Amino acid sequence: MSQTICAIATAAGGAIGIVRISGPHTLEILSHVFSRDLSDALPYTIHYGHIEDIDDVLVSVFRAPHSYTGEDAAEISCHGSRYILNKVLERLVEQGARLAAPGEFTQRAFLNGKMDLSQAEAVADLIASTNRATHDLALSQLRGGISSELSRLRDQLLRLTSLLELELDFSDHEELEFADRRELLALADTIDGRVRQLADTFQAGNALKNGIPVAIIGAPNVGKSTLLNALVGEERAIVSDIQGTTRDAIEDEIQLSGITFRFIDTAGIRHTNDQIETLGIERSIAAAQRAQIVLLMTEPGVPYPDIPLRDDQTVIRIINKCEDSCKPEGSPPSWEGLGVGLISAKYGVGLDDLRQRLIDAAPKLPDGDVIVTSARHYEALCRAHDSLTRVIAGLGENNSQLSTINSQLSTDLVAEDLRLTLDALADITGGAITPQETLNNIFSHFCVGK
Amino acid sequence: MSQTICAIATAAGGAIGIVRISGPHTLEILSHVFSRDLSDALPYTIHYGHIEDIDDVLVSVFRAPHSYTGEDAAEISCHGSRYILNKVLERLVEQGARLAAPGEFTQRAFLNGKMDLSQAEAVADLIASTNRATHDLALSQLRGGISSELSRLRDQLLRLTSLLELELDFSDHEELEFADRRELLALADTIDGRVRQLADTFQAGNALKNGIPVAIIGAPNVGKSTLLNALVGEERAIVSDIQGTTRDAIEDEIQLSGITFRFIDTAGIRHTNDQIETLGIERSIAAAQRAQIVLLMTEPGVPYPDIPLRDDQTVIRIINKCEDSCKPEGSPPSWEGLGVGLISAKYGVGLDDLRQRLIDAAPKLPDGDVIVTSARHYEALCRAHDSLTRVIAGLGENNSQLSTINSQLSTDLVAEDLRLTLDALADITGGAITPQETLNNIFSHFCVGK
Repeated sequence: MSQTICAIATAAGGAIGIVRISGPHTLEILSHVFSRDLSDALPYTIHYGHIEDIDDVLVSVFRAPHSYTGEDAAEISCHGSRYILNKVLERLVEQGARLAAPGEFTQRAFLNGKMDLSQAEAVADLIASTNRATHDLALSQLRGGISSELSRLRDQLLRLTSLLELELDFSDHEELEFADRRELLALADTIDGRVRQLADTFQAGNALKNGIPVAIIGAPNVGKSTLLNALVGEERAIVSDIQGTTRDAIEDEIQLSGITFRFIDTAGIRHTNDQIETLGIERSIAAAQRAQIVLLMTEPGVPYPDIPLRDDQTVIRIINKCEDSCKPEGSPPSWEGLGVGLISAKYGVGLDDLRQRLIDAAPKLPDGDVIVTSARHYEALCRAHDSLTRVIAGLGENNSQLSTINSQLSTDLVAEDLRLTLDALADITGGAITPQETLNNIFSHFCVGK
Repeated sequence: MSQTICAIATAAGGAIGIVRISGPHTLEILSHVFSRDLSDALPYTIHYGHIEDIDDVLVSVFRAPHSYTGEDAAEISCHGSRYILNKVLERLVEQGARLAAPGEFTQRAFLNGKMDLSQAEAVADLIASTNRATHDLALSQLRGGISSELSRLRDQLLRLTSLLELELDFSDHEELEFADRRELLALADTIDGRVRQLADTFQAGNALKNGIPVAIIGAPNVGKSTLLNALVGEERAIVSDIQGTTRDAIEDEIQLSGITFRFIDTAGIRHTNDQIETLGIERSIAAAQRAQIVLLMTEPGVPYPDIPLRDDQTVIRIINKCEDSCKPEGSPPSWEGLGVGLISAKYGVGLDDLRQRLIDAAPKLPDGDVIVTSARHYEALCRAHDSLTRVIAGLGENNSQLSTINSQLSTDLVAEDLRLTLDALADITGGAITPQETLNNIFSHFCVGK
């Protein structure tokens, strides 16, 4: 962090382009590049001037520690030509700045204590957010939703852990018991409950973040591609009247009510001797297994395909090509009475009802609650749950046993498992010492310039 | 301009995104959108806060007249997610801002006298610039190169025109002659010379701005596509051994020494009965006509194709497939002695020499001189030249005639043509009243947000 880093922070092609610089030598480097002297510039001020032979620019000045990174920093606002932005970057590098690695500005913000690790991860999610659901999840995480919850749990646990460790230090005085075992057991139970609750939000959080996988499953030629096209509104999948046309799984997305549904268009399910088609069918069944929502589709007179489904999958049954059974005004019979939806993908009948069923089948997020969307957080919560389970078991044994030697050994193990729990919870926010490998892994997924 | 306008000013996909707002209600609108009160904010200051439920942002405050547009203005710096940027824009519109038309910020800058019209045009050119040549031309124009030159010419002309018009006001006093005819004639001559000089830079300026068109012309199968691929360094054109493969003109570009060369890959020129190929050949000949540099290409033992060329085109003659005639070390015989270049497109021999020939053939721009790159400016200069030609002719007649009635009529016509000259020169910088249609035409080519 003794080096000063720089990067282009905007995408190519806009009216305005921003070059960002951060580090101890920011103002010194700018003094060789920018036409105006910024050594006395107040923080949070903007300065108009030029970079010789390159552009007229605005320079925004930030001073440590009140900047995004916590270091001296500046943003150079130029005309948004890639040529100009590259030239400005060149000048900064000539004067001793180094090109920033992906996410390096945010990594510095983390290392300088401007945000914790889960907030840093939320920055990347926020930039990548494309709809209300992903945006809201990332913003809540950036604002410290999960961080403050975990910090509360850790504080409670830490007090009791410290008392337990104090006991171990005075282990020759057998009679001493600083930590109330019943209180500790109750707390471990409560915290484990909350840890499991948080971990349980991951499936929903992950589905919302990456799009809810929906598989359309049906016999050949019942209109799966036509339905997908009607929903997506574009002719992305090739539609034909020949059976077995759609052999490759084509992925497509729709946004409904701020939620992304990721469609897996699949080959028709039927008995066939065509080897390639058989492969396609096997893939369709595998896709159905992965999906969270299965649109089981058929047409009048054809039975639904018989494929294995999981209990936790939502199945929506639809019968396509119902243009004839629909009322003349085009509104189909209600789903409620039938338990299946009568639709006409070709004529767009019944699709609004279908869209509503999809929205209803999307995971509901408890209002205002913390949602886990990161696999890294989920893994840490699972570790916390594992060690808490051992803590609870250990405390239970301890109560029922009378041997003081066993008791001391058990206290030792419980204290160790409590440490592991605290570490697991700390890993999420990066409060403990985070290994460089973990940091590299997190920040390498950022874009350059953030 | 009583309305407040807003737009996203950065391209989608960067770390940082900027929403721009300008107009009299900027601060009032922000007070409903941004978490902090900016009513006392000093100009050129930055404010950290949030836009509720959307993002944590930095707002840069500018105050009339010291802003890009000359109005109260602000830039909202958010996380660069398209979803967030659109949401911020939505909020501003809800509070009474209007979405800006393309180039509307710059149009306001022009209307508020922050820049003249040629400078405003330079802004769009600067943003679009992709190499040193186009960048330097745009920057010089933005810095007022052509503006100050034209303003000097106009000032000189204006003084004499005023004297001439004064004479017309006193036309019953025949003896009065405020304007020295000889001085006027000399000045008109000088200015016309400079106007022609400026107009003459247009061809070179335009070629540099849009790329210098180069046509590769040769018989089929002499290696035109291979050469293009070798120069461009990518396999964009399909290369095949079958004669007549390249039927469509494929355009490609290379950058040499900061200049863009726009290649027109053409079909082989030969006698053929194939109708489609004949069409291709006709297009090749037309392309050769449009090109500024013609690479006339053949292989040993094949004559150069016989096509009509213009005197002002640079012809570079090359013989391909000279891998055998090249020295063993791979360096071909020098161009100087032969007047043609022996190259091997396949093995990359002689290509550095060829690149140097292309750079040599590019139009040279007089160092530090004003270059005209805009067709609109060129057209105005041509109009100025036309009317100046009539002024010069009129003054000549005037000198040789004795009839005072004719003289007065002539003075009338000369004064009118001087006005037309002044108007034509003023049109370039927009100093005279510029018709809305012209403004629309200019600013509609801008990107939104500038």
